[in-house]
Amino acid sequence: MTNLPDDPRLALMLLSSMIEPGDAELDDLLGEIGPIEVVKRLWEGEVPERLQRITSAIVSCTHDPAARAADIAAATEECGARVLIPGDPDWPDQLRDLLLVCDADEPHVRPPRCLWVRGEQDLDRLCRRSVAIVGARAATEYGQHLADDLAAELTEAGWTIVSGGAFGIDRAAHLGALARGGSTVSVLACGVELPYPKGNHSMFNLIAERGLIVSEWPPGTTVMKHRFLTRNRVIAALTAGTVVIEAAHRSGARNTARYAAELGRVLMFTPGPVTSSMSAGAHQLAREPWEARLVTRAEEVIEDLTGIGGPLATPPPPQRRPFDRLTEIEARLVESLPRGYVVETTRLAAAAGVPADIAAETLDRLLQTGWVDRIDNRWRLSRGSHS
Amino acid sequence: MTNLPDDPRLALMLLSSMIEPGDAELDDLLGEIGPIEVVKRLWEGEVPERLQRITSAIVSCTHDPAARAADIAAATEECGARVLIPGDPDWPDQLRDLLLVCDADEPHVRPPRCLWVRGEQDLDRLCRRSVAIVGARAATEYGQHLADDLAAELTEAGWTIVSGGAFGIDRAAHLGALARGGSTVSVLACGVELPYPKGNHSMFNLIAERGLIVSEWPPGTTVMKHRFLTRNRVIAALTAGTVVIEAAHRSGARNTARYAAELGRVLMFTPGPVTSSMSAGAHQLAREPWEARLVTRAEEVIEDLTGIGGPLATPPPPQRRPFDRLTEIEARLVESLPRGYVVETTRLAAAAGVPADIAAETLDRLLQTGWVDRIDNRWRLSRGSHS
Repeated sequence: MTNLPDDPRLALMLLSSMIEPGDAELDDLLGEIGPIEVVKRLWEGEVPERLQRITSAIVSCTHDPAARAADIAAATEECGARVLIPGDPDWPDQLRDLLLVCDADEPHVRPPRCLWVRGEQDLDRLCRRSVAIVGARAATEYGQHLADDLAAELTEAGWTIVSGGAFGIDRAAHLGALARGGSTVSVLACGVELPYPKGNHSMFNLIAERGLIVSEWPPGTTVMKHRFLTRNRVIAALTAGTVVIEAAHRSGARNTARYAAELGRVLMFTPGPVTSSMSAGAHQLAREPWEARLVTRAEEVIEDLTGIGGPLATPPPPQRRPFDRLTEIEARLVESLPRGYVVETTRLAAAAGVPADIAAETLDRLLQTGWVDRIDNRWRLSRGSHS
Repeated sequence: MTNLPDDPRLALMLLSSMIEPGDAELDDLLGEIGPIEVVKRLWEGEVPERLQRITSAIVSCTHDPAARAADIAAATEECGARVLIPGDPDWPDQLRDLLLVCDADEPHVRPPRCLWVRGEQDLDRLCRRSVAIVGARAATEYGQHLADDLAAELTEAGWTIVSGGAFGIDRAAHLGALARGGSTVSVLACGVELPYPKGNHSMFNLIAERGLIVSEWPPGTTVMKHRFLTRNRVIAALTAGTVVIEAAHRSGARNTARYAAELGRVLMFTPGPVTSSMSAGAHQLAREPWEARLVTRAEEVIEDLTGIGGPLATPPPPQRRPFDRLTEIEARLVESLPRGYVVETTRLAAAAGVPADIAAETLDRLLQTGWVDRIDNRWRLSRGSHS
């Protein structure tokens, strides 16, 4: 008799090593009979034919599935990770929203079955006030500067930054947040023990120390193009909103953006030069029917994330000049005073297009504030006036 | 007896030299009794007290109003200009839309009473397919490059560019259009005989030759701050839409933008670096309740101007790579093939998360297109494949 895993967590870990995330048929079956029973039926050849075909290679050469599951658990422990499954106290329930958007065209957009997490933090708590910052690997200096800045300021405002682990925008966002003492979440498309790309090695170590490295795939899984796309749905679903900073027209960040929009999360983008191909994909978001919001500062991101009732971004302080403090009518009168001449009230009023009585009142006020001088009931621009 | 102008056009010219545009009381009176009668009553002291006060300085020192009107007509003719009044065949009727937006807060947002135009062209015809390009005087090289480019391409697509006459964006837009042989319209806040600023002298000459210089004020009128704001409503009302290219937070371009939005014209802006103060005002438009559209190319401007049924901007051609032509399932299979190994169909199908029968079909197709080689019913990545 086959030795089967007797723990749902172990069974889910085993299944995740055999079948890619977002398999609608498997997920439906898991919902019906639970992971232990699914594993049992797989090895007994009693699952729908399609699932049998997908798993046949592994089933046929694995005579002790419980031992295989234990191996995965050991590899998980060895790299200091653990596995979260739905129902765990630190499982982020917002991932369920993915059920709302998966459909026949995209059956793989399902909630994850389980998550490997590396780090001490509580994933649910970290993501409760979180925002994704995503963008191009081949980002410009400008884009990286923006990502770093935005991540730093959002961190200071108490928001957790969630991103992938790529060079460019992902890296800049993590480092910006980490530099302010933040805990970030890096969601990977490979095993958590060897985050890709290796060049971000020390960044990943810092994230594991302070935040969390997260993946749907067991240790030993390597990156593949389709896994990045699958991973993106998790970044979008974990967070309250996604900010796209620099994305070429074809870009994974735009894929994350679409998931965010479909999930009803707040989709934002930062603008850049029209002449920069790296900004083209971000600008394109503004012209798609997703209502992507243009953001230029952390305050605006927070305003958009918190919506009605939340803090409003203070408009940047206008560069006020003395002239600008004048009312419309005051300004008209000051401007209508020819430099170096003295003018009667009625004539000045006519030039400024202001009724004479209002002009007289207003000129008295301008006299008090030092804008004009009065000479024999006529008016002159005061020498101290700047206009 | 006072010598009064006997022609409505002359009467309007005279009135325009006495009372600033957008005087609700005068305009209402003009609607009731017509310009000749208004002039008569002004000189007889039979108009409402406020109008009397505004005009008293001129009325009291002008004993021959008909001669004064004739002087204005002579100055108009001398600079090669003419005066258009509502009802003229080349009067642009869309200016009437301003009646929809003037209210107690902004009584001056009224249609112009008359327009001085310098140039041969028909103003109505020129503006029938027109778009305003406005922005900062202190524009960056980037902004000027954009304005020039956009104006050139819109001109080639048969659109007339309308703008002010300032340095920076206005100038770049005019020159971009003129360089492609376009006729542009420059709407001024001073007399058409001496367009401000003088530094754009040769540009204005070119515009007068090929397009039109337009103003609500008679020859001899100098610019004033409030006249620029009054002028902006005409730029917004003449055109089907306004594109704001670079505007600081406090900027006349944003004033034009607001009029365009209120008039139901299409309001557009071009993005720029978040770090550029010159783009801040343009970006701010996207966050105001005006539904300003982000545009990066002339095609997008035209798409927005023509709306439903108009030409759609073709999305920029994606930079296709051979791998990208593969379907999702083909791509998964190609990526799951380890380099340098041969793999069985079922094992490869499992690794790619694809049902074995679909994998088999798909691999046959990939064999034909040269992506994979078959060796004894097992599969290998073809040497020629790029992935």
